[in-house]
Parts: sequence; structure tokens; C-alpha cells
Amino acid sequence: MGYSAVVSSDGPVRNAADEVSRIVEQSKELQDSATSLISRTSEEEASLRQRALALRSNIKMLRSFIASSLKKGNLDPKNAAKMIEDLTRVNFALNEGDAAAYLPCKSHGRFLRMLLGPINVRANRKDVQLKVKEEYNNFRDTTAYLFLLFPSLLLVLRTWMWNGCFPALPVQLYQAWLLFLYTGLSFRENVLRVNGSDIRPWWIYHHYCAMAMALISLTWEIEREPECAQKQKGIQLFLKWAIMQGIAMLLQNKYQRQRLYTRIALGKARRMDVVWGETAGVEGQLWFLCPMLFVLQVFEGYVGVLLLKTAMVGVISEWQVVTCGVLLITMAVGNFANTVETLLLKSRFKAKMKKGKQTEI
Amino acid sequence: MGYSAVVSSDGPVRNAADEVSRIVEQSKELQDSATSLISRTSEEEASLRQRALALRSNIKMLRSFIASSLKKGNLDPKNAAKMIEDLTRVNFALNEGDAAAYLPCKSHGRFLRMLLGPINVRANRKDVQLKVKEEYNNFRDTTAYLFLLFPSLLLVLRTWMWNGCFPALPVQLYQAWLLFLYTGLSFRENVLRVNGSDIRPWWIYHHYCAMAMALISLTWEIEREPECAQKQKGIQLFLKWAIMQGIAMLLQNKYQRQRLYTRIALGKARRMDVVWGETAGVEGQLWFLCPMLFVLQVFEGYVGVLLLKTAMVGVISEWQVVTCGVLLITMAVGNFANTVETLLLKSRFKAKMKKGKQTEI
Repeated sequence: MGYSAVVSSDGPVRNAADEVSRIVEQSKELQDSATSLISRTSEEEASLRQRALALRSNIKMLRSFIASSLKKGNLDPKNAAKMIEDLTRVNFALNEGDAAAYLPCKSHGRFLRMLLGPINVRANRKDVQLKVKEEYNNFRDTTAYLFLLFPSLLLVLRTWMWNGCFPALPVQLYQAWLLFLYTGLSFRENVLRVNGSDIRPWWIYHHYCAMAMALISLTWEIEREPECAQKQKGIQLFLKWAIMQGIAMLLQNKYQRQRLYTRIALGKARRMDVVWGETAGVEGQLWFLCPMLFVLQVFEGYVGVLLLKTAMVGVISEWQVVTCGVLLITMAVGNFANTVETLLLKSRFKAKMKKGKQTEI
Repeated sequence: MGYSAVVSSDGPVRNAADEVSRIVEQSKELQDSATSLISRTSEEEASLRQRALALRSNIKMLRSFIASSLKKGNLDPKNAAKMIEDLTRVNFALNEGDAAAYLPCKSHGRFLRMLLGPINVRANRKDVQLKVKEEYNNFRDTTAYLFLLFPSLLLVLRTWMWNGCFPALPVQLYQAWLLFLYTGLSFRENVLRVNGSDIRPWWIYHHYCAMAMALISLTWEIEREPECAQKQKGIQLFLKWAIMQGIAMLLQNKYQRQRLYTRIALGKARRMDVVWGETAGVEGQLWFLCPMLFVLQVFEGYVGVLLLKTAMVGVISEWQVVTCGVLLITMAVGNFANTVETLLLKSRFKAKMKKGKQTEI
């Protein structure tokens, strides 16, 4: 009781109590504002979503109407082409502009759902999406250098220090790093896909295969002397392929980054024109990159076939050898098919653009 | 030219062209609305963030002022306790209410940044956050059953089919599953942490250790006959521990789910009271769960020591044995320390609550 007597004379109780009730009041106001902002935003988002969906279906309907009218001869082809171009631009804006954030989200896919749970990884703002892509490219750059460094180091040490025989630990560390790397790439590419990237599904499957291969190679016994030189031939080939892969990744990254910069620059100027300027200025690199990619794919398939052959002959007859061989061949074939398809699409697109320019003149 | 003559008479060109320009117009309006919503929302969010931060620092200042006044004898303890309680409630509301979405995000941590990139995994809405937690519990439930099933199956097949010796493939499949499982748990727990869960950091580190162990065990050669019975003792012990772990996980899940339901139910009624009712109604289960957890931790440490012993004696002298042993012992000690700490916190909290009730009467 002595306390309150002392206290009431100089008043800090009063002041502190006032301050507390002021804070309680502020907290209530803040919570109310937050609740109201959340509900208002979600209402407005729902209405934008409705409008975006309606627009998308209208574009689709009108496109098929124009196509059927053209077939029936009810439309002048030149007019129809103009209309289709307008619709294409509108559609592009719908998928790339600010409103795209309100279209229903692309499915997150099994991989993300299994490992990450039901959390949304789509960024609403375009600048965040571009940052994600930029950071993905940085990640790929770093890994490309490591892709060159690690296998080179292993091969050099094998000759200089290890007398032609790989010890188990360094190789397994490399394999664990590969597993980590491919897991990271798979995650990041899935995130990019959800954020509207047009990445081909194959490249993601390809990284799932690579993950499986890294995992399997971890269970693969590293043979010790004697006979290691013979039995470790597969590892040696794989490392050489990895070095080539590193070089190809570096080139690819440089090419794709330039594309992204063009995209950002054009997007800032006139977002709708992005798709028309995409391949500008990187023509020369593509003609250097492609043969490199094809050589790499052939070598990848060759390593796969060699692995299968060693299993057939019976030098190493474990299931890991066969599975890794099959995976490598699958990846080589898939990569080849997808590279060819991309090139065909690009050249068809360019031909169309050229034709478009000629008719304009 | 024939086309347009046909066309201009019945007018589909006109109609289609009108429709196209209408769609172009709609698209512009939609984009404008989207841009404006995004900018308005981010402005309002920034202002709410400012207010929430100011409130947080005011609470902190006032708390330390009250504490120092109390020390100097300028405040009546009863009044001070009342004020501190009010401030605690406000602070709880700030961290758990709708406004929490606008406080600066918790750091995503190295694990998420390395594997997922710079994407934000925080859900703004409370119901989404609770859904994430609910789904995490479901994931744990499923895995708990598999945790019981897989090792039991391996142990049964060993006796009945494999004549006391594990073949490599099934064990390696189990190890790969463990790696996948712990990776998934680590991801989900990191996501929960970012979404404001009070999960103890140790449980996440614990899953990193478990990931490392699963990865290392994959590189561990599974000994073949003869001598397998002796050399596979480690695997056998590990599987038995895994079965116990499965049972403990099931019990833990049941307990934690009940806590979550209490939380949701109370949150709907009076969000601020959540923390005071958290342990209600699950008292009995906790007294069954704790001894189970301690037995499990002792057994985990015992398996670790046994592994180290086999390495010392020289039965299996690979680095994997030593590392797995050390990891198991680390996990056992860490788990024990954290379980004890949690129990102490709970009992201290309960004592405080009891005291509070007595003084109220």
C-alpha cells in the first residue's frame, strides 16, 4: 500500500496508464484498418479476376468466329489478319501485363505441392517476377562455373595425386552437390513456371531425371584398386561430359540473360512489343550455341550407351549402371528433340515476322 | 477483292471489327484497373506497415518504462501487472491478428533462399496460414504411418525372406524416401516459420541433420554375405529406432493437432485469448507423450554410440559410420534439451496462470 501513496503524488501511474490505453486504442484501429484493407483488396481482386476471365473467353470466342468467317469466305483476309493481330496483342497483354496477376494461378504441380505444401509462390508484381528470373540466372551462372571446376579438379587430382583411381569420398561429395544443384534448379524452374515463365516442361522433367541420376549414383559403389581403372571408366566419362555441360551452360546463360535484358528494356518502353523483339541482337550467339548443344547431347547419349555396354559385358552388373545409362539416353533424346523444336519455332516465328514486314512495305 | 464485296453486304466485318475494338478498349480498362489496384494496395500496405512498426516500438518503450518505474518504486505492482498484461495482449494481437501481415517479413533463411530463390512464401491471410499448418499436420500424419510401415516391412522380410541379410536395393529405397521426407519437412517447417509459427529453430536444424544422415547412409555400402548379420547390426538398430519414431510421431501429431484446433476455435471466438487456452484438454496426453519421447531420445543416442563403437572396434571402419554416429548423438542431445526446455516453459507458464487466477479471486 506504501507504493501507491508514493506514486499518486508524482503521477507516473496516470501517465503510463493513459499511454497504455492510447496504445490499446491504436492497436484496435490498426487491426480494423488491416481487416478492412484485406477484405477490400480481396473483393476488388475477385472483380478483376472476373473481368480478366471474361476478356479471355471473349478473345477466344472472337478468334474462332474470325477463323470460321474467314473459312466461309465472309471476311477479307487482310482485315482478318489485322483483327487477329490486335487480338494477339490483347491476349499477350492479358498474360504479361499487370492484370495477369489476377488470372487464376497456374497449377503449382506435384513437385512443389509435395515438398513445399499448399503455399502460393506466385508474385503479384511484375518487378518481383523479373527479380526471381534474374536471380535464377545468377544461380545458373554460379553453378555453371562450379560445373566446370568440380569435375576438372577431380580429373586432375586423379592423374596427379590418386594414381589413376578415384577415392570414394570426393566423388560422392560431387554427386551430393549435383543432387542439391538439380533439386534447386527444379524448385526454381517450377517457381518460374508458376510466375508465368514459358519454360518448356521438358527442361523441368530433365532436371527430375538428373536428380534421380545423382541420387542413384550416390548408391553406386566406387570400386577400389585393383581393376579400378577399368571399372571407373564410367565415372571418368561422366566427368568429361560434365565439363562440357558447364561450358554449354555458361554460353546458354549468356544468351538467355541477353534475352531477358531485351525483354525488360522493351517491356519498359512498350510492354506489348516484347515478343516481337525477343531474338534481336543475339542471332550470332545462337549459331555458336546450337552445334555445341548438339555435340553435348550426342556425348550424353554416348556415355549412356557406354554404361549400358559395360553392364551387358558384365564388367559392372549393378542395377545402378543400367538405370543411369537409360536415364542418360532418355535425357539426351529429350534434350535433342526439345532443342530442335525450339529452333523450328524460332525460325517459323522469324519467317512470319519477315513476311509481316514485307506486306507492311 | 471478291471477298470484301460479299462481306460488306452482310456486315460481319463491321461487327467483328467493332467487337475487336471493344475488346481492345476493355483490355486497356482492365490493365488500368489492375495497375491502379496494385499501386493503391502497395501504398496502403506501406502505411499500415509504418503504423504497425510504430506501435511495436511504442509497446517496447512503454514496457521498459513500466519495468524501470516498478524498480524505482514509482509504480504500484498491481497496476503495473495490469498494464503489462494489456500490453502483452496488444503485442499478441499485433503478431497474430490481421495487421501481422504488414509487419516486415521474417527472414526466409538460407535453406529456402538457396533452394527456392527470392520468392516470398508468406501468406497474407490468416486462413491460408492455418491451412498451411493443417496440411503440414496431414503430411506428418501420412509420413508417421509410413515411418511405421517401411522399417517394419524391412525387418519382417529380413527374417522371412532374406535369411537374416538385407539386400541393398530395398534399404537404399528406404534411405532415399527418408531423404525426400526430411527435405519436405524442412521446407514445410521453414514455410511455417516465415508464416509466423513459433516452431523452435532446433526442430528445423534437427531435420537438416536427418537429411544429412539420409544422404550419407545412401553412400554406405550394404555388406553382403558372409558376415552380414554382424555388419548389418547398425541398420537393424536404426530400423527399430525408426519404428519407435513412427509411434512417437503419431502421438505427437495427435497432440499438436488438438492444440491447433483449440487455437482455431478460440481464435474464432476471441483471437486474443488464444495463448491462454492453448494447453487445455490435452494435459493427459502430454504425460503419456513425454516419457515416450525421452525413451526415444535415449535409444537414438544409444544407436549413435553403438555405431561409434563398431567404428572403434574396427568391424566397419568407413567414415559414414562415424559421421552417422555423431549425427545421431547430436540429434538425441538436442532433442532432449529442447523437449525439457519446452516442458519447463509450459509448466512456468501454467504456474503463472494459476497465480494470476488466485490473485484475481
